[in-house]
Amino acid sequence: MREIHVIGIGAGDPDQLTLQAVRALRETDVFFVLDKGEAKADLVRLRRDILRTHVPEGTYRVVEARDPERDRSAGGAAYSPAVGDWRSARADIYERLIADELGADQRGAFLVWGDPALYDSTLGILEEVRARGAVEFAYDVIPGISSVSALVARHRTGLNRVARPVQITTGRRLAEGFPDGVDDVVVMLDAHQAFRQYADQDIDIYWGAYIGTPDEILVSGPIAEAAPRIERLRAEARERKGWIMDTYLLRRRPKSQA
Amino acid sequence: MREIHVIGIGAGDPDQLTLQAVRALRETDVFFVLDKGEAKADLVRLRRDILRTHVPEGTYRVVEARDPERDRSAGGAAYSPAVGDWRSARADIYERLIADELGADQRGAFLVWGDPALYDSTLGILEEVRARGAVEFAYDVIPGISSVSALVARHRTGLNRVARPVQITTGRRLAEGFPDGVDDVVVMLDAHQAFRQYADQDIDIYWGAYIGTPDEILVSGPIAEAAPRIERLRAEARERKGWIMDTYLLRRRPKSQA
Repeated sequence: MREIHVIGIGAGDPDQLTLQAVRALRETDVFFVLDKGEAKADLVRLRRDILRTHVPEGTYRVVEARDPERDRSAGGAAYSPAVGDWRSARADIYERLIADELGADQRGAFLVWGDPALYDSTLGILEEVRARGAVEFAYDVIPGISSVSALVARHRTGLNRVARPVQITTGRRLAEGFPDGVDDVVVMLDAHQAFRQYADQDIDIYWGAYIGTPDEILVSGPIAEAAPRIERLRAEARERKGWIMDTYLLRRRPKSQA
Repeated sequence: MREIHVIGIGAGDPDQLTLQAVRALRETDVFFVLDKGEAKADLVRLRRDILRTHVPEGTYRVVEARDPERDRSAGGAAYSPAVGDWRSARADIYERLIADELGADQRGAFLVWGDPALYDSTLGILEEVRARGAVEFAYDVIPGISSVSALVARHRTGLNRVARPVQITTGRRLAEGFPDGVDDVVVMLDAHQAFRQYADQDIDIYWGAYIGTPDEILVSGPIAEAAPRIERLRAEARERKGWIMDTYLLRRRPKSQA
Protein backbone atom coordinates (compact mmCIF):
# COMPACT_ATOMS: atom_id res chain seq x y z
CA MET A 1 0.00 0.00 0.00
CA ARG A 2 1.20 3.48 -0.86
CA GLU A 3 1.86 5.62 2.19
CA ILE A 4 1.80 9.38 2.37
CA HIS A 5 3.07 11.77 5.03
CA VAL A 6 1.56 15.23 5.20
CA ILE A 7 4.41 17.05 6.90
CA GLY A 8 4.15 20.44 8.57
CA ILE A 9 7.58 22.01 8.06
CA GLY A 10 7.08 25.12 10.19
CA ALA A 11 6.51 28.72 9.28
CA GLY A 12 9.88 29.60 7.77
CA ASP A 13 12.63 28.89 10.30
CA PRO A 14 14.14 25.56 9.22
CA ASP A 15 15.01 24.88 12.88
CA GLN A 16 11.30 24.77 13.65
CA LEU A 17 11.08 21.34 12.06
CA THR A 18 10.21 18.68 14.61
CA LEU A 19 12.25 15.51 15.08
CA GLN A 20 9.17 13.63 13.91
CA ALA A 21 9.14 15.65 10.70
CA VAL A 22 12.84 14.97 10.11
CA ARG A 23 12.21 11.25 10.56
CA ALA A 24 9.29 11.39 8.12
CA LEU A 25 11.40 13.29 5.58
CA ARG A 26 14.07 10.61 5.76
CA GLU A 27 11.70 7.76 5.04
CA THR A 28 10.14 9.49 2.07
CA ASP A 29 10.83 8.34 -1.49
CA VAL A 30 8.95 11.03 -3.39
CA PHE A 31 8.26 14.62 -2.34
CA PHE A 32 5.28 16.31 -3.95
CA VAL A 33 5.82 20.02 -4.16
CA LEU A 34 2.74 22.02 -5.01
CA ASP A 35 3.45 25.60 -5.86
CA LYS A 36 1.02 28.43 -6.05
CA GLY A 37 2.73 29.91 -9.07
CA GLU A 38 3.64 33.09 -7.23
CA ALA A 39 7.10 34.59 -7.10
CA LYS A 40 8.25 32.53 -4.16
CA ALA A 41 11.78 31.61 -5.07
CA ASP A 42 12.73 32.10 -1.41
CA LEU A 43 10.22 29.52 -0.29
CA VAL A 44 11.36 27.03 -2.89
CA ARG A 45 14.93 27.56 -1.71
CA LEU A 46 13.95 27.13 1.94
CA ARG A 47 12.29 23.84 1.14
CA ARG A 48 15.26 22.62 -0.89
CA ASP A 49 17.57 23.58 1.97
CA ILE A 50 15.46 21.54 4.37
CA LEU A 51 15.70 18.46 2.16
CA ARG A 52 19.42 18.97 1.54
CA THR A 53 20.11 19.35 5.25
CA HIS A 54 18.10 16.40 6.49
CA VAL A 55 17.79 13.81 3.75
CA PRO A 56 20.77 12.01 2.17
CA GLU A 57 21.15 12.94 -1.48
CA GLY A 58 20.09 10.29 -3.98
CA THR A 59 17.50 8.74 -1.65
CA TYR A 60 14.53 10.74 -2.91
CA ARG A 61 12.83 12.38 -5.87
CA VAL A 62 11.01 15.71 -5.99
CA VAL A 63 7.96 16.02 -8.21
CA GLU A 64 6.72 19.53 -8.75
CA ALA A 65 3.24 20.53 -9.79
CA ARG A 66 1.17 23.65 -9.97
CA ASP A 67 -1.56 24.10 -7.42
CA PRO A 68 -4.53 25.40 -9.43
CA GLU A 69 -5.96 27.34 -6.49
CA ARG A 70 -4.29 30.64 -7.12
CA ASP A 71 -2.93 30.30 -10.60
CA ARG A 72 -5.15 28.64 -13.14
CA SER A 73 -3.51 30.43 -16.02
CA ALA A 74 -0.06 28.94 -15.44
CA GLY A 75 -0.79 25.82 -17.52
CA GLY A 76 1.86 23.93 -19.36
CA ALA A 77 2.83 21.77 -16.39
CA ALA A 78 2.45 18.02 -16.53
CA TYR A 79 -0.28 18.26 -13.93
CA SER A 80 -2.54 21.09 -14.93
CA PRO A 81 -6.06 21.48 -13.58
CA ALA A 82 -8.89 19.64 -15.28
CA VAL A 83 -12.25 21.21 -16.00
CA GLY A 84 -14.46 21.64 -12.93
CA ASP A 85 -14.19 23.51 -9.69
CA TRP A 86 -10.87 24.16 -8.06
CA ARG A 87 -11.26 21.57 -5.41
CA SER A 88 -11.91 18.87 -7.98
CA ALA A 89 -9.05 20.22 -10.05
CA ARG A 90 -6.71 19.90 -7.07
CA ALA A 91 -8.00 16.44 -6.31
CA ASP A 92 -7.37 15.47 -9.96
CA ILE A 93 -3.78 16.61 -9.68
CA TYR A 94 -3.15 14.90 -6.36
CA GLU A 95 -4.74 11.71 -7.59
CA ARG A 96 -2.51 11.61 -10.64
CA LEU A 97 0.59 12.50 -8.63
CA ILE A 98 -0.05 9.60 -6.28
CA ALA A 99 -1.04 7.12 -8.99
CA ASP A 100 1.68 8.01 -11.50
CA GLU A 101 4.66 9.01 -9.39
CA LEU A 102 4.44 6.75 -6.35
CA GLY A 103 5.22 3.05 -6.61
CA ALA A 104 2.86 0.66 -4.86
CA ASP A 105 5.32 0.13 -1.99
CA GLN A 106 6.68 3.67 -1.83
CA ARG A 107 6.27 6.55 0.57
CA GLY A 108 5.33 10.00 -0.64
CA ALA A 109 5.12 13.26 1.24
CA PHE A 110 3.45 16.61 0.88
CA LEU A 111 5.41 19.38 2.57
CA VAL A 112 3.15 22.02 4.07
CA TRP A 113 4.27 25.39 5.40
CA GLY A 114 3.31 25.90 9.02
CA ASP A 115 0.84 23.35 10.34
CA PRO A 116 -1.30 21.31 7.94
CA ALA A 117 -4.23 21.93 10.34
CA LEU A 118 -4.47 25.66 9.72
CA TYR A 119 -5.74 27.17 6.46
CA ASP A 120 -4.20 24.50 4.30
CA SER A 121 -6.12 22.42 1.80
CA THR A 122 -3.93 19.30 1.64
CA LEU A 123 -5.90 17.15 4.09
CA GLY A 124 -9.26 17.99 2.53
CA ILE A 125 -7.96 17.15 -0.92
CA LEU A 126 -6.44 13.84 0.16
CA GLU A 127 -9.76 12.88 1.75
CA GLU A 128 -11.50 13.68 -1.52
CA VAL A 129 -9.01 11.58 -3.49
CA ARG A 130 -9.53 8.69 -1.10
CA ALA A 131 -13.30 9.02 -1.35
CA ARG A 132 -13.09 8.70 -5.13
CA GLY A 133 -11.50 5.30 -4.66
CA ALA A 134 -9.42 5.30 -7.85
CA VAL A 135 -6.09 5.10 -6.02
CA GLU A 136 -5.53 3.52 -2.63
CA PHE A 137 -3.18 4.94 -0.04
CA ALA A 138 -2.73 5.40 3.69
CA TYR A 139 -1.65 8.72 5.13
CA ASP A 140 -0.69 10.39 8.36
CA VAL A 141 -0.20 13.97 9.47
CA ILE A 142 2.92 15.39 11.12
CA PRO A 143 1.96 18.61 12.90
CA GLY A 144 4.16 21.65 12.40
CA ILE A 145 4.81 24.96 14.11
CA SER A 146 2.19 27.26 12.60
CA SER A 147 2.86 30.86 11.61
CA VAL A 148 0.46 31.71 14.44
CA SER A 149 2.66 30.02 17.07
CA ALA A 150 5.80 31.44 15.50
CA LEU A 151 4.31 34.94 15.47
CA VAL A 152 3.41 35.10 19.14
CA ALA A 153 6.64 33.38 20.19
CA ARG A 154 8.61 36.14 18.46
CA HIS A 155 6.45 38.74 20.19
CA ARG A 156 6.87 36.81 23.45
CA THR A 157 3.18 36.87 24.16
CA GLY A 158 0.44 34.25 24.42
CA LEU A 159 -2.42 33.63 22.03
CA ASN A 160 -5.04 33.85 24.73
CA ARG A 161 -5.28 35.75 27.97
CA VAL A 162 -5.90 33.87 31.22
CA ALA A 163 -9.00 31.67 30.89
CA ARG A 164 -10.11 33.65 27.79
CA PRO A 165 -10.79 32.38 24.27
CA VAL A 166 -8.89 33.19 21.10
CA GLN A 167 -10.24 33.08 17.57
CA ILE A 168 -8.27 32.42 14.40
CA THR A 169 -9.90 33.88 11.33
CA THR A 170 -9.26 35.38 7.90
CA GLY A 171 -8.76 38.94 6.71
CA ARG A 172 -11.96 38.71 4.71
CA ARG A 173 -13.98 37.85 7.81
CA LEU A 174 -12.31 40.52 9.91
CA ALA A 175 -13.30 43.04 7.25
CA GLU A 176 -16.94 42.08 7.93
CA GLY A 177 -16.63 42.92 11.62
CA PHE A 178 -14.71 42.13 14.79
CA PRO A 179 -15.71 38.60 15.87
CA ASP A 180 -18.30 38.31 18.64
CA GLY A 181 -17.37 37.11 22.09
CA VAL A 182 -13.59 37.32 21.80
CA ASP A 183 -11.03 40.03 22.50
CA ASP A 184 -8.06 38.14 21.01
CA VAL A 185 -8.17 37.46 17.29
CA VAL A 186 -5.47 36.04 15.05
CA VAL A 187 -5.83 36.98 11.40
CA MET A 188 -4.38 35.02 8.50
CA LEU A 189 -4.66 35.40 4.73
CA ASP A 190 -5.24 39.14 4.89
CA ALA A 191 -4.20 40.73 1.62
CA HIS A 192 -6.09 43.94 2.36
CA GLN A 193 -4.90 44.84 5.86
CA ALA A 194 -8.36 44.70 7.39
CA PHE A 195 -6.85 45.72 10.74
CA ARG A 196 -6.82 49.32 9.53
CA GLN A 197 -10.55 49.66 10.00
CA TYR A 198 -10.08 49.13 13.76
CA ALA A 199 -7.46 51.84 14.16
CA ASP A 200 -9.84 53.97 16.24
CA GLN A 201 -10.33 51.24 18.84
CA ASP A 202 -8.40 50.30 21.98
CA ILE A 203 -6.68 47.37 20.36
CA ASP A 204 -3.05 46.29 20.33
CA ILE A 205 -1.66 44.59 17.26
CA TYR A 206 1.17 42.06 17.11
CA TRP A 207 2.16 41.79 13.46
CA GLY A 208 4.83 39.82 11.70
CA ALA A 209 5.95 39.04 8.16
CA TYR A 210 8.36 36.36 6.88
CA ILE A 211 8.46 35.07 10.45
CA GLY A 212 11.49 33.00 11.34
CA THR A 213 13.40 33.93 8.18
CA PRO A 214 16.22 36.45 7.74
CA ASP A 215 13.64 38.88 6.29
CA GLU A 216 11.44 38.78 9.39
CA ILE A 217 9.69 42.04 10.28
CA LEU A 218 7.87 42.50 13.60
CA VAL A 219 5.72 45.41 14.71
CA SER A 220 3.58 45.68 17.82
CA GLY A 221 1.74 48.37 19.70
CA PRO A 222 -1.56 50.25 19.83
CA ILE A 223 -3.15 49.76 16.44
CA ALA A 224 -3.57 53.50 15.80
CA GLU A 225 0.20 53.96 16.03
CA ALA A 226 1.27 50.66 14.53
CA ALA A 227 -1.08 50.53 11.53
CA PRO A 228 0.61 53.22 9.40
CA ARG A 229 4.00 51.71 10.15
CA ILE A 230 2.86 48.22 9.20
CA GLU A 231 1.29 49.56 6.04
CA ARG A 232 4.54 51.20 4.99
CA LEU A 233 6.81 48.28 5.93
CA ARG A 234 4.47 45.81 4.28
CA ALA A 235 4.37 47.77 1.01
CA GLU A 236 8.15 48.18 0.97
CA ALA A 237 8.79 44.49 1.69
CA ARG A 238 6.27 43.35 -0.87
CA GLU A 239 7.84 45.60 -3.47
CA ARG A 240 11.33 44.40 -2.61
CA LYS A 241 10.61 40.66 -2.44
CA GLY A 242 7.65 40.31 -4.79
CA TRP A 243 5.53 38.47 -2.21
CA ILE A 244 4.63 38.67 1.43
CA MET A 245 3.39 36.27 4.09
CA ASP A 246 2.14 38.00 7.19
CA THR A 247 -0.05 37.25 10.19
CA TYR A 248 -1.20 39.24 13.16
CA LEU A 249 -2.89 39.09 16.53
CA LEU A 250 -5.40 41.76 17.55
CA ARG A 251 -5.84 42.14 21.30
CA ARG A 252 -8.59 44.34 22.62
CA ARG A 253 -7.53 46.17 25.76
CA PRO A 254 -9.67 45.63 28.84
CA LYS A 255 -12.25 48.37 29.34
CA SER A 256 -10.72 49.38 32.67
CA GLN A 257 -7.43 50.29 31.01
CA ALA A 258 -9.01 52.03 28.03
CA MET B 1 23.01 39.14 31.80
CA ARG B 2 20.99 36.08 32.71
CA GLU B 3 19.20 34.49 29.76
CA ILE B 4 16.11 32.37 29.87
CA HIS B 5 14.52 30.14 27.25
CA VAL B 6 10.82 29.37 27.54
CA ILE B 7 10.75 26.12 25.60
CA GLY B 8 7.62 24.47 24.23
CA ILE B 9 8.37 20.76 24.37
CA GLY B 10 5.28 19.50 22.57
CA ALA B 11 2.16 17.78 23.80
CA GLY B 12 3.59 14.44 24.87
CA ASP B 13 5.38 12.81 21.94
CA PRO B 14 9.09 13.45 22.55
CA ASP B 15 9.63 13.41 18.76
CA GLN B 16 7.50 16.51 18.52
CA LEU B 17 10.36 18.59 19.88
CA THR B 18 11.66 21.03 17.28
CA LEU B 19 15.32 21.26 16.30
CA GLN B 20 15.24 24.78 17.76
CA ALA B 21 14.04 23.38 21.08
CA VAL B 22 16.78 20.74 21.10
CA ARG B 23 19.37 23.44 20.47
CA ALA B 24 17.94 25.55 23.29
CA LEU B 25 17.97 22.56 25.65
CA ARG B 26 21.64 21.97 24.89
CA GLU B 27 22.69 25.50 25.73
CA THR B 28 20.80 25.54 29.01
CA ASP B 29 22.64 25.39 32.34
CA VAL B 30 19.65 25.22 34.67
CA PHE B 31 16.20 23.77 34.01
CA PHE B 32 13.37 25.07 36.14
CA VAL B 33 10.71 22.45 36.54
CA LEU B 34 7.43 23.74 37.94
CA ASP B 35 5.07 21.01 38.93
CA LYS B 36 1.41 21.29 39.66
CA GLY B 37 1.62 18.83 42.50
CA GLU B 38 -0.66 16.37 40.75
CA ALA B 39 0.07 12.71 40.27
CA LYS B 40 1.96 13.17 37.06
CA ALA B 41 4.86 10.79 37.41
CA ASP B 42 4.48 9.99 33.71
CA LEU B 43 4.99 13.60 32.77
CA VAL B 44 8.01 13.94 35.00
CA ARG B 45 9.46 10.84 33.37
CA LEU B 46 8.74 12.16 29.88
CA ARG B 47 10.55 15.37 30.67
CA ARG B 48 13.52 13.53 32.16
CA ASP B 49 13.67 11.31 29.10
CA ILE B 50 13.77 14.37 26.87
CA LEU B 51 16.70 15.82 28.80
CA ARG B 52 18.50 12.47 28.92
CA THR B 53 18.06 11.96 25.18
CA HIS B 54 19.15 15.40 24.04
CA VAL B 55 21.44 16.97 26.60
CA PRO B 56 24.82 15.48 27.60
CA GLU B 57 24.79 14.37 31.23
CA GLY B 58 26.68 16.60 33.65
CA THR B 59 26.12 19.75 31.59
CA TYR B 60 22.98 20.90 33.38
CA ARG B 61 21.11 21.12 36.66
CA VAL B 62 17.41 20.64 37.30
CA VAL B 63 15.73 22.78 39.94
CA GLU B 64 12.25 21.69 40.90
CA ALA B 65 9.62 23.86 42.48
CA ARG B 66 5.94 23.68 43.16
CA ASP B 67 3.67 25.82 41.06
CA PRO B 68 1.19 27.31 43.53
CA GLU B 69 -1.58 27.55 40.97
CA ARG B 70 -3.24 24.25 41.61
CA ASP B 71 -1.74 23.10 44.85
CA ARG B 72 -1.26 25.69 47.52
CA SER B 73 -1.38 23.10 50.26
CA ALA B 74 1.72 21.23 49.10
CA GLY B 75 4.16 23.50 50.95
CA GLY B 76 7.43 22.23 52.24
CA ALA B 77 9.31 22.93 49.04
CA ALA B 78 12.16 25.41 48.99
CA TYR B 79 10.05 27.70 46.86
CA SER B 80 6.60 27.79 48.35
CA PRO B 81 4.13 30.52 47.56
CA ALA B 82 4.24 33.76 49.51
CA VAL B 83 1.17 35.50 50.81
CA GLY B 84 -0.87 37.25 48.11
CA ASP B 85 -2.73 36.17 45.05
CA TRP B 86 -1.59 33.23 43.03
CA ARG B 87 -0.13 35.25 40.26
CA SER B 88 2.05 37.17 42.69
CA ALA B 89 2.87 33.93 44.42
CA ARG B 90 4.04 32.45 41.16
CA ALA B 91 6.02 35.57 40.32
CA ASP B 92 7.67 35.36 43.76
CA ILE B 93 8.76 31.81 43.06
CA TYR B 94 10.04 32.53 39.57
CA GLU B 95 11.89 35.61 40.77
CA ARG B 96 13.66 33.64 43.47
CA LEU B 97 14.42 30.76 41.12
CA ILE B 98 16.08 33.12 38.67
CA ALA B 99 17.90 35.18 41.31
CA ASP B 100 19.09 32.28 43.47
CA GLU B 101 19.67 29.45 41.04
CA LEU B 102 20.95 31.16 37.93
CA GLY B 103 24.43 32.64 37.80
CA ALA B 104 24.79 36.08 36.22
CA ASP B 105 26.20 34.61 33.01
CA GLN B 106 24.09 31.46 32.93
CA ARG B 107 21.20 30.28 30.80
CA GLY B 108 18.04 28.95 32.40
CA ALA B 109 15.01 27.35 30.81
CA PHE B 110 11.40 26.72 31.64
CA LEU B 111 10.03 23.62 29.91
CA VAL B 112 6.41 24.04 28.93
CA TRP B 113 4.13 21.25 27.70
CA GLY B 114 2.66 21.99 24.30
CA ASP B 115 3.12 25.57 23.14
CA PRO B 116 3.89 28.34 25.67
CA ALA B 117 1.39 30.52 23.75
CA LEU B 118 -1.69 28.49 24.67
CA TYR B 119 -3.17 28.41 28.17
CA ASP B 120 0.16 28.56 29.90
CA SER B 121 1.12 31.15 32.49
CA THR B 122 4.91 31.18 32.12
CA LEU B 123 5.17 34.21 29.80
CA GLY B 124 2.81 36.32 31.88
CA ILE B 125 4.71 35.52 35.05
CA LEU B 126 8.11 36.28 33.52
CA GLU B 127 6.76 39.65 32.35
CA GLU B 128 5.58 40.36 35.88
CA VAL B 129 8.97 39.42 37.32
CA ARG B 130 10.67 41.71 34.82
CA ALA B 131 8.30 44.56 35.60
CA ARG B 132 9.20 44.30 39.29
CA GLY B 133 12.80 45.03 38.36
CA ALA B 134 14.44 43.11 41.22
CA VAL B 135 16.23 40.67 38.93
CA GLU B 136 17.35 41.38 35.39
CA PHE B 137 17.19 38.83 32.62
CA ALA B 138 16.57 38.46 28.91
CA TYR B 139 14.29 35.76 27.57
CA ASP B 140 13.02 34.23 24.38
CA VAL B 141 10.23 31.84 23.46
CA ILE B 142 10.65 28.60 21.51
CA PRO B 143 7.24 27.63 20.12
CA GLY B 144 6.11 24.04 20.53
CA ILE B 145 3.56 21.70 18.98
CA SER B 146 0.42 22.37 21.01
CA SER B 147 -1.97 19.66 22.15
CA VAL B 148 -4.42 21.31 19.74
CA SER B 149 -2.17 20.71 16.73
CA ALA B 150 -1.30 17.23 17.93
CA LEU B 151 -4.99 16.38 18.42
CA VAL B 152 -6.14 17.28 14.93
CA ALA B 153 -3.04 15.75 13.33
CA ARG B 154 -3.91 12.41 14.95
CA HIS B 155 -7.49 12.77 13.74
CA ARG B 156 -6.15 13.80 10.31
CA THR B 157 -8.40 16.80 10.14
CA GLY B 158 -7.89 20.56 10.08
CA LEU B 159 -8.68 23.07 12.78
CA ASN B 160 -10.74 25.25 10.50
CA ARG B 161 -12.85 24.57 7.46
CA VAL B 162 -12.13 26.40 4.20
CA ALA B 163 -12.09 30.17 4.82
CA ARG B 164 -13.88 29.68 8.17
CA PRO B 165 -12.75 30.74 11.65
CA VAL B 166 -11.89 28.49 14.60
CA GLN B 167 -12.09 29.41 18.25
CA ILE B 168 -9.98 27.95 21.05
CA THR B 169 -11.66 28.19 24.42
CA THR B 170 -12.02 26.56 27.82
CA GLY B 171 -14.46 23.99 29.18
CA ARG B 172 -15.81 26.57 31.58
CA ARG B 173 -16.72 28.92 28.74
CA LEU B 174 -18.20 26.17 26.62
CA ALA B 175 -20.44 25.31 29.56
CA GLU B 176 -21.83 28.86 29.33
CA GLY B 177 -22.84 28.39 25.70
CA PHE B 178 -21.56 27.52 22.25
CA PRO B 179 -19.43 30.46 21.07
CA ASP B 180 -21.05 32.93 18.69
CA GLY B 181 -20.04 33.15 15.07
CA VAL B 182 -18.01 29.94 14.83
CA ASP B 183 -18.83 26.33 13.97
CA ASP B 184 -15.40 24.94 14.90
CA VAL B 185 -14.40 25.15 18.54
CA VAL B 186 -11.39 23.62 20.28
CA VAL B 187 -11.85 23.10 24.00
CA MET B 188 -9.03 22.87 26.53
CA LEU B 189 -8.98 22.60 30.31
CA ASP B 190 -12.35 20.90 30.51
CA ALA B 191 -12.60 18.88 33.71
CA HIS B 192 -16.38 18.61 33.46
CA GLN B 193 -16.91 17.37 29.90
CA ALA B 194 -18.97 20.36 28.86
CA PHE B 195 -19.42 18.78 25.42
CA ARG B 196 -22.14 16.57 26.87
CA GLN B 197 -24.60 19.41 26.93
CA TYR B 198 -24.42 19.64 23.12
CA ALA B 199 -25.17 15.95 22.55
CA ASP B 200 -28.57 16.78 20.99
CA GLN B 201 -26.99 18.95 18.28
CA ASP B 202 -25.56 18.17 14.85
CA ILE B 203 -21.98 18.37 16.00
CA ASP B 204 -19.03 16.05 15.44
CA ILE B 205 -16.44 15.71 18.18
CA TYR B 206 -12.75 14.87 17.75
CA TRP B 207 -11.48 13.99 21.19
CA GLY B 208 -8.09 12.85 22.42
CA ALA B 209 -6.34 12.13 25.72
CA TYR B 210 -2.61 11.66 26.44
CA ILE B 211 -2.02 12.59 22.82
CA GLY B 212 1.27 11.42 21.37
CA THR B 213 2.04 9.10 24.29
CA PRO B 214 1.67 5.30 24.50
CA ASP B 215 -1.56 5.88 26.48
CA GLU B 216 -3.16 7.92 23.72
CA ILE B 217 -6.93 7.52 23.29
CA LEU B 218 -8.80 8.95 20.32
CA VAL B 219 -12.54 9.07 19.73
CA SER B 220 -14.42 10.87 16.97
CA GLY B 221 -17.91 10.93 15.55
CA PRO B 222 -21.32 12.49 16.02
CA ILE B 223 -21.37 13.84 19.55
CA ALA B 224 -24.54 11.95 20.51
CA GLU B 225 -22.80 8.65 19.80
CA ALA B 226 -19.31 9.59 20.90
CA ALA B 227 -20.12 11.36 24.17
CA PRO B 228 -21.04 8.27 26.23
CA ARG B 229 -17.98 6.44 24.90
CA ILE B 230 -15.68 9.34 25.76
CA GLU B 231 -17.23 9.62 29.20
CA ARG B 232 -16.55 5.96 29.90
CA LEU B 233 -13.01 5.87 28.44
CA ARG B 234 -12.13 9.09 30.22
CA ALA B 235 -13.32 7.81 33.60
CA GLU B 236 -11.47 4.50 33.16
CA ALA B 237 -8.23 6.18 32.09
CA ARG B 238 -8.38 8.71 34.89
CA GLU B 239 -8.94 5.94 37.39
CA ARG B 240 -6.09 3.87 35.97
CA LYS B 241 -3.51 6.65 35.64
CA GLY B 242 -4.59 9.08 38.34
CA TRP B 243 -4.67 12.04 35.97
CA ILE B 244 -5.87 12.93 32.51
CA MET B 245 -5.00 15.53 29.88
CA ASP B 246 -7.55 15.76 27.11
CA THR B 247 -8.60 18.18 24.41
CA TYR B 248 -11.27 18.17 21.77
CA LEU B 249 -12.60 19.86 18.68
CA LEU B 250 -16.33 20.39 18.20
CA ARG B 251 -17.41 20.80 14.58
CA ARG B 252 -20.95 21.85 13.81
CA ARG B 253 -22.26 20.14 10.69
CA PRO B 254 -23.47 22.43 7.91
CA LYS B 255 -27.22 22.96 7.97
CA SER B 256 -27.64 21.39 4.54
CA GLN B 257 -26.29 18.07 5.80
CA ALA B 258 -28.22 18.12 9.06
